[in-house]
Amino acid sequence: MYSIDKKTKNLPIGIFDSGIGGLTVAKSIFNLLPNEKVIYLGDTARLPYGTKSKETVILYSIECLKFLIKKKVKLIVVACNTASSVAVPFLKKITKIPILGVITPGAKAAVEKTKNNKIGVIGTVRTIKSKSYLKEIRKFNNKLKIFSQPCSLFVQLAEDGWIDNKIAYLTAETYLTILKKEKIDTLILGCTHYPVLKKTIGKVMGKKVTLIDSGEETAKEVKSVLERNNLLTNRKRKGIHKFYVTDFPSNFKAISERFLGKKIAKVEKIKLQ
Amino acid sequence: MYSIDKKTKNLPIGIFDSGIGGLTVAKSIFNLLPNEKVIYLGDTARLPYGTKSKETVILYSIECLKFLIKKKVKLIVVACNTASSVAVPFLKKITKIPILGVITPGAKAAVEKTKNNKIGVIGTVRTIKSKSYLKEIRKFNNKLKIFSQPCSLFVQLAEDGWIDNKIAYLTAETYLTILKKEKIDTLILGCTHYPVLKKTIGKVMGKKVTLIDSGEETAKEVKSVLERNNLLTNRKRKGIHKFYVTDFPSNFKAISERFLGKKIAKVEKIKLQ
Repeated sequence: MYSIDKKTKNLPIGIFDSGIGGLTVAKSIFNLLPNEKVIYLGDTARLPYGTKSKETVILYSIECLKFLIKKKVKLIVVACNTASSVAVPFLKKITKIPILGVITPGAKAAVEKTKNNKIGVIGTVRTIKSKSYLKEIRKFNNKLKIFSQPCSLFVQLAEDGWIDNKIAYLTAETYLTILKKEKIDTLILGCTHYPVLKKTIGKVMGKKVTLIDSGEETAKEVKSVLERNNLLTNRKRKGIHKFYVTDFPSNFKAISERFLGKKIAKVEKIKLQ
Repeated sequence: MYSIDKKTKNLPIGIFDSGIGGLTVAKSIFNLLPNEKVIYLGDTARLPYGTKSKETVILYSIECLKFLIKKKVKLIVVACNTASSVAVPFLKKITKIPILGVITPGAKAAVEKTKNNKIGVIGTVRTIKSKSYLKEIRKFNNKLKIFSQPCSLFVQLAEDGWIDNKIAYLTAETYLTILKKEKIDTLILGCTHYPVLKKTIGKVMGKKVTLIDSGEETAKEVKSVLERNNLLTNRKRKGIHKFYVTDFPSNFKAISERFLGKKIAKVEKIKLQ
């Protein structure tokens, strides 16, 4: 790979997303690896990626990647299901820095958890259409039954904070009843916004269904890759977190707090391209 | 203004929007002015504008405007409430071609309709925060009482076709109850997506409340401006409608049909900037 020395070890982890959803992934990484420095980039000027064509998503992802490379990071997390599903193979051709999407860790965890071999996947229309979770699960085990369901309204519900009211419950019920009927025992939350709705999704699915939070699984995978490559920081103090966005959405502050679970002290607006 | 001759008369009307919402405005223009040629541009690669900063919306709007100017149009409709509210004054500095936003016609119609002098305005967070309807209504009559309410979930509901189910009704009820309590008699649908939900909004508000469809009002204003400037086409056959987008959203076909009320035969993907 590339030279591993004390300096490389203490470089930050880079995370990018189309916007703020990836903050749920960042939160999991902050919790699991508190001493790591982290740089987060949200391409908020062009969100959402989930409704855009494959070509556009790849182009935008390359621009995000280049920004993080310039910032000198030791590992890059594509904290966006859409970008993970369509852009990661292209990104890996550009740099030798390890790149992790959120699809593989989520798929892997689901395969390990299921007991009845029936897995459900929920995500944006684009993620579900890309069949990326399905393909990834098949790589681990091609005998599992997989049921997919797009839940496009969940993103707006999460951003508006309508996460445990009657509308959130009814919406979840409308989307998820078909998965319940198929008796899945494991459900992948295949969109970074969905962990915010975890409680309501759990209520609809019932206690017997394990919810897989791709963010948490990705954080575990980040730790594992850093360990394997001897890249874990040796600093003992809390890592600094830097946030960059390409635009300030009108309700950025409230949403980012809800997604990250804490206030963002400082955000810098930058230009891509 | 600029030279009015037979050639100018038969130039197309240009319409632009951040995406597909403006198709409800286009639909109203097609209905009212069937012989006019129309060019529609949807900046789908960068939708939605409603969550973006003022600077970004102005920048994107200028790019849309320049595209339409190149296509030689006789009048330009900014069929997007966000762009209308923040960008129209800037756009008017760039060209002498008449430019109409959707705010003024909607505001004017509401002022004319109200009898109890209580008007409600619903729209995206950005449109409501901009207070553009409020300011515009004040220009016509500064003694009216105006009550505003952002309804961010309506856009996704309209795009998903969840327009008259229980969730749509409950969502509308949650947003609109406060306006009902204020006893408004006129409600401006201040987002181009909202006419798709008109039936449900009407059910919640009751028959005594007049719903103002900004698209319909804008179409009337387009006709009036063309008449005043002697710019109405003198052709007797049905006008050709051309559609351009900057990207193909994953569910473009289904949504555009729902918004336009007919199939789009041909759409061309173009690059802005």
